[in-house]
Amino acid sequence: MAGKTVCVFSGGMDSTTLLYHLLDISDEVLPVSFDYGQRHRKELEFAARTCARLGLSHRLVDIRGAGELLQGSALTSEEIPVPHGHYEDKSMRSTVVPNRNMIMLAIAGGWAVATGCRRLAVAVHAGDHAVYPDCRPEFILDFEAALQSGNYEKVEVYAPFLKWSKTDIVRLGLRLGIDFERDTWSCYEGGAEPCGRCGTCVERAEALAAAQRLK
Amino acid sequence: MAGKTVCVFSGGMDSTTLLYHLLDISDEVLPVSFDYGQRHRKELEFAARTCARLGLSHRLVDIRGAGELLQGSALTSEEIPVPHGHYEDKSMRSTVVPNRNMIMLAIAGGWAVATGCRRLAVAVHAGDHAVYPDCRPEFILDFEAALQSGNYEKVEVYAPFLKWSKTDIVRLGLRLGIDFERDTWSCYEGGAEPCGRCGTCVERAEALAAAQRLK
Repeated sequence: MAGKTVCVFSGGMDSTTLLYHLLDISDEVLPVSFDYGQRHRKELEFAARTCARLGLSHRLVDIRGAGELLQGSALTSEEIPVPHGHYEDKSMRSTVVPNRNMIMLAIAGGWAVATGCRRLAVAVHAGDHAVYPDCRPEFILDFEAALQSGNYEKVEVYAPFLKWSKTDIVRLGLRLGIDFERDTWSCYEGGAEPCGRCGTCVERAEALAAAQRLK
Repeated sequence: MAGKTVCVFSGGMDSTTLLYHLLDISDEVLPVSFDYGQRHRKELEFAARTCARLGLSHRLVDIRGAGELLQGSALTSEEIPVPHGHYEDKSMRSTVVPNRNMIMLAIAGGWAVATGCRRLAVAVHAGDHAVYPDCRPEFILDFEAALQSGNYEKVEVYAPFLKWSKTDIVRLGLRLGIDFERDTWSCYEGGAEPCGRCGTCVERAEALAAAQRLK
């Protein structure tokens, strides 16, 4: 893909795979991460480390001031426990941070315009759809329309995993040489070690096992 | 209007009028302002003072980290001069901050969801359309679609001035008892006194004169 691409990059499995994929096909990739006061801020260390290893300059944007407004989610409020169980369980709804993807995409989209990038990449995937409305195709399409009507420059939203399962992503990541255990962080708890019980730990383990079986 | 409304509030003429208008018709108004590193940060003091006078709690959100990414505008880059002349001149394009409205609306929209507000108010008006794509009706409609598809809760975007001129706004403001000279700030330079020559100073003076003539 010709030109430069801004990539929303959390340091988790999905966006790490996206970053490697973009490096495979793009002229230049500009990764950007967000500190919105997430409990699992630890993912940002992994993001920084991956960028350093790949020789990419990494922008980390402090939006904790905005994060303070988005209370009521287990990811931003210490008093709300992170639910255990499966990623698609209804209980996972307590991990929804209102409008989080639009906020990150809006800032990253503004950066794309300011830097002359024609493409904004995001790693949303089908496994997210059940719980997170801001990962669904309708949202991505509506967001792209707003990004284009709100700016002189037309920036395209590139969401190649929109209809992929987590396992599909992990398989691509393994093919691209990613060491997920060493290089990515998923656990919503953000402790010293992954908790193994939150939705994203369970999803991670299942996807790794399935991808290994399919190899 | 029943229910609570989040209002994006800069402290300028348009959003001050919007705030007064909302107080006239709403059950509860939650004003929010943004520090994105704008040269005319002085407007934020006026915003805080107006909220204090009206007995409203005022949220000021620090997004200077995001503002740093949005360079290349006269409003965020010290080395780019603020253009003189008329508000609709082509030279005013250098005051466009990429995706600024979407970033502010995305955060304010997330806050609306988190606080159970059903309405998000913004003071964009027809005088902005020539220069700022993120003040045009297409953008407001596309943004509202994205806000609604990206969240479980349906928040409506209320932009009552979308087709009004600045003079229309000032007339309503005068009727609502606003002392624009004392209570609002417009100048893009943000110095001790308004410069009188930048687009927004010129627009302000013209609108005040026209509204006085029409009274």
